[in-house]
Amino acid sequence: MIKITLKDGSVKEFESGLSVYEIAKSISEGLARNACCGIVNDKVCDLRKEINADVELSICTFDSQEGKNAVRHSISHVLAYAVKRLFPETTLAIGPSIATGFYYDFDKDVAFTSQDLEKLEAEMQKIVKENPSIERFELSRDEALKLMKDEPYKVELINDLPEEEIISFYKVGDFTDLCAGPHLMSLKPVKAIKLIRSSGSYWKGNEKNKMLSRIYGTAFLKKSELEDFLEALEEAKKRDHNKLGRELELFTTDESIGQGLPLMMPKGAKIIQLLQRWVEDEEEKRGYSLTKTPLMAKSDLYKISGHWDHYKDGMFVLGDEEKDSEVYALRPMTCPFQYTIYNATQHSYRDLPIRYGETSTLFRNESSGEMHGLTRVRQFTLADGHLVCTPEQLEEEFKGVLELIDYLMSTLGISEDITYRFSKWDPKNTEKYINDPDAWNHTQNVMKQILDHLKIDYVEADDEAAFYGPKLDLQCRNVHGKEDTLFTVQIDFALAERFDMTYVDKNGEKKRPYIIHRSSIGCYERTLAMLIEKYAGAFPTWLAPIQAKVLPISDKYNDYADSVVKSLRNKGIRIEGDYRAEKIGYKIREARLQRTPYILVVGEKEAANNEVSVRSRKNDDEGAINLDAFIERILKEVANKER
Amino acid sequence: MIKITLKDGSVKEFESGLSVYEIAKSISEGLARNACCGIVNDKVCDLRKEINADVELSICTFDSQEGKNAVRHSISHVLAYAVKRLFPETTLAIGPSIATGFYYDFDKDVAFTSQDLEKLEAEMQKIVKENPSIERFELSRDEALKLMKDEPYKVELINDLPEEEIISFYKVGDFTDLCAGPHLMSLKPVKAIKLIRSSGSYWKGNEKNKMLSRIYGTAFLKKSELEDFLEALEEAKKRDHNKLGRELELFTTDESIGQGLPLMMPKGAKIIQLLQRWVEDEEEKRGYSLTKTPLMAKSDLYKISGHWDHYKDGMFVLGDEEKDSEVYALRPMTCPFQYTIYNATQHSYRDLPIRYGETSTLFRNESSGEMHGLTRVRQFTLADGHLVCTPEQLEEEFKGVLELIDYLMSTLGISEDITYRFSKWDPKNTEKYINDPDAWNHTQNVMKQILDHLKIDYVEADDEAAFYGPKLDLQCRNVHGKEDTLFTVQIDFALAERFDMTYVDKNGEKKRPYIIHRSSIGCYERTLAMLIEKYAGAFPTWLAPIQAKVLPISDKYNDYADSVVKSLRNKGIRIEGDYRAEKIGYKIREARLQRTPYILVVGEKEAANNEVSVRSRKNDDEGAINLDAFIERILKEVANKER
Repeated sequence: MIKITLKDGSVKEFESGLSVYEIAKSISEGLARNACCGIVNDKVCDLRKEINADVELSICTFDSQEGKNAVRHSISHVLAYAVKRLFPETTLAIGPSIATGFYYDFDKDVAFTSQDLEKLEAEMQKIVKENPSIERFELSRDEALKLMKDEPYKVELINDLPEEEIISFYKVGDFTDLCAGPHLMSLKPVKAIKLIRSSGSYWKGNEKNKMLSRIYGTAFLKKSELEDFLEALEEAKKRDHNKLGRELELFTTDESIGQGLPLMMPKGAKIIQLLQRWVEDEEEKRGYSLTKTPLMAKSDLYKISGHWDHYKDGMFVLGDEEKDSEVYALRPMTCPFQYTIYNATQHSYRDLPIRYGETSTLFRNESSGEMHGLTRVRQFTLADGHLVCTPEQLEEEFKGVLELIDYLMSTLGISEDITYRFSKWDPKNTEKYINDPDAWNHTQNVMKQILDHLKIDYVEADDEAAFYGPKLDLQCRNVHGKEDTLFTVQIDFALAERFDMTYVDKNGEKKRPYIIHRSSIGCYERTLAMLIEKYAGAFPTWLAPIQAKVLPISDKYNDYADSVVKSLRNKGIRIEGDYRAEKIGYKIREARLQRTPYILVVGEKEAANNEVSVRSRKNDDEGAINLDAFIERILKEVANKER
Repeated sequence: MIKITLKDGSVKEFESGLSVYEIAKSISEGLARNACCGIVNDKVCDLRKEINADVELSICTFDSQEGKNAVRHSISHVLAYAVKRLFPETTLAIGPSIATGFYYDFDKDVAFTSQDLEKLEAEMQKIVKENPSIERFELSRDEALKLMKDEPYKVELINDLPEEEIISFYKVGDFTDLCAGPHLMSLKPVKAIKLIRSSGSYWKGNEKNKMLSRIYGTAFLKKSELEDFLEALEEAKKRDHNKLGRELELFTTDESIGQGLPLMMPKGAKIIQLLQRWVEDEEEKRGYSLTKTPLMAKSDLYKISGHWDHYKDGMFVLGDEEKDSEVYALRPMTCPFQYTIYNATQHSYRDLPIRYGETSTLFRNESSGEMHGLTRVRQFTLADGHLVCTPEQLEEEFKGVLELIDYLMSTLGISEDITYRFSKWDPKNTEKYINDPDAWNHTQNVMKQILDHLKIDYVEADDEAAFYGPKLDLQCRNVHGKEDTLFTVQIDFALAERFDMTYVDKNGEKKRPYIIHRSSIGCYERTLAMLIEKYAGAFPTWLAPIQAKVLPISDKYNDYADSVVKSLRNKGIRIEGDYRAEKIGYKIREARLQRTPYILVVGEKEAANNEVSVRSRKNDDEGAINLDAFIERILKEVANKER
């Protein structure tokens, strides 16, 4: 008999050797029917897995991400099966599940057409209806290579596997694929399958490798769930910052400038300016000092900071270490620069905490294939900052950082989308981290205490820390359901030592300060992307590049329209007049397409009464309003940063 | 007989073959006595020069820069003469006049000490008193090389001379030096000589060459003039931004970051932020649209713009053209990026003029030896901008640019220090310029017409244009008398073509726009340097990093001091309290040293009456003032940007 600790904390005894599926069944028939996979001691596994020792066990249904993954991974095999039936000359690469579905990469002479996708989807429905058996088996390396001899990518994958790894296969009907699992026991519950699109992709994501054909799809247990998903996908497409941001003339890109280097057009630059000034001013109010430091430095600086040893591949290097007496690099972080400012003067405990903030442009040398819109870029600007404090001040400062972040995020309306991840080091990864286990353990404990004390609800993640210390990542899902790190708060135990940063304490002794690295708003490019998608381009009035448009119903009222423009502009409102000889309906439609918060129509009555006829994004046609009253209203809305 | 046109436009007849000196004498004895050199047909020459043809002639006294140069150049030979007498083992490099004096570079084993300088100055006085003869003679190249055989630097200089060049020497007493002149006829009028300092310098300014010993000095005709100069020099030293800017903790530099990469400390960053927001807002008011474009681009972009051909040596290049498929470079200018934004949408004549502005960080790859403080840097930020307009709009837009510049400069208090230079191309320098003579002539004519029409008082300078068109340079002398280009306004005839920029005119035809390149304020680093020196650190209140300091006379009044700090801070005034247990006199002195505009002392009386005792930079002790009245006053001063 073995002891199984279930998700709810209860402990049950079972015979040794039962499968996860059998254990689920012994708990309830319903659970077994809905089970997709299991989690044994934090590791996802197949329902077929036999349990032979005391373990912690969760049984996952489609409600969990793990359950969804098992369903969609199984359906990705069904896709490959269908491809082999309809296009037998195709060879197979890989086919994992992803956040909202799955994909499979194929090597095929001609790319898949949308007609191909329709045929494949029909074939997949047919396969699922056939209700094929699904079996798992293991082979030795030699046997595995023999079985896969006609699939060169599978051969490469098998050869890449570590020696001790178990090599498993899954057989769906008469289609066999190399796979670590987990997979469903049966395809019967899967009632909704959709192939979404095809695209090119490089083998192993490397542009030097062959270009393959990727098919994206998804699967649900119920048809209605798929319908909801497709509707959300349509909405997401409309909101996609990389599409909408260009349509609204917020940004553009250019082939001769390069990938990952977006250009902010006037409307996008205006939003970025508004955000940056707002953050700088808010930080100043909270006792931050602004710095402005250079965007490059000699390798000497990065050797002190450790970036040269731990981060060189991610940096743009200017010059050649072997040829040039001085090698420079564009900065990937602001820390060593703000530390240099700290070190430029002496500090006593009375000066601490010192809070440095900078609107800081940074560079990361990433490969072209990974670039995307405003979210995967080579150059970006961060509200970066470092707080230097005594050990006693650490918790209070950490709390202050989280409060500032919360204020900024709730003003932007995205605080509810944020989750927290406590990212720790991996003691085995000595390449990536400063190798000082005691310091890591100490700092991680300090950070955990602070997080628990502040009642932050976080998940823990190993091997995700900065090289110099643990961090709290603030995660946000984008409109496509993809999770991104918006910003991080880090506690640094190493760099104060490396930069020999000190303060003189009450007793006149030199001490090492603690340092918190933090951003208060995510990088501005990514924040803009998120705001575009969040508001589908209809930015809150205070952030809208154009806040109001005045439309005279005919050129007789151009003068009055002009005086309205001037009155509002004098008050700092971003307003334009549309004096074109177009029909008023056309002009209103166009202003609406641009998501203008207020459309002010003026004609005879308005001109006579010093009024504007307001069409607001919120309330649509509000009728005529006194001009001064309207000015007061919009100024209040802007001052309060209303959403 | 020949005809000589004099400076005042009068034409006089003289015998052919008279020297400039003899002509001066025939005009007046006094002029001959004060003459230092001549200018014949725009070329500076010796008083000894014989005139054999009809020419334009100016006779220069010490009042002109040319006259000063002749005096100081002659005295630089006297320095070399003295060095040869006292340190005969020294070899000679070069010894030109400079804006405020002269220098001479020597190759000597041990650097000159200040005692050496004193001895040399005494020796020079002695030489001048000896009233040596000064003679000029010419030699063939072979004879010249023979005469200078023991002076290796002179040999190198002679070998560098173009074949047709006349090789001339000057002999002062028994000291002979290779020299193109001009020199005085006699040293007698020179009554004031001063050696100022010695320093290292590379032969031909190239760090790969040998380090030489340079001695700086100056000379005047009157002792009182020298005294005034030395006093101004002392004052300039105190104001030197590279010294004072560090003392006031405005900026710092660091060896491990590198030369030419200053770090703005909180107080310096605050001034830069204030300036940048002011300029951005003022430009927005004047119809500019803000952009924010990437700091690097692929070489492809610079190949289109011509920077790759005409400016590559000045750029930081990332990657290696021979090895890498994509080579990037940090941008030296904003133009191609703003053109890309223009090209991202279609434009009609109705949209023009379009005025793009950007707070734009740029990079220039200059050698380490040329770096200095905030004025010679590798990275700097410019209020850069480009105006795209129709031919008819060109003059109006050019005028608008000059008006904006004038507003900004007079607000900062530096408009009176500015002179204008019309920089033109050099048809012979085909490497440096786009080779399109017709376009150059046309654009230079257009620009000249505009300048004359706007009644700009300018000097013309050949071979100083941008590679794509002529420019108007706004020049400013710094505190050391050195002239720098603060900013430029350029008319671009070439890049609209290269970037295929168009607009659709009234007839529906595609046309090329004109482009004005301009900055509205010099690069912010250089502007800050100039403001530090102009105001000796006592910035106008609106720009002062700390605008007021509250000093309680004892800790009994800390609470009231704190309430004063809060009241002013709420109104946006940058204020600090000094609560240290130091004597009030000490705290006042320290606040004065930091050039704080307002020092507010508070004690019993002030606390009781809601007052502050004001010590202002302008009026010193002003006595007690009602707190609200003081707030109103300082807010008004800041709003009006009073100086």
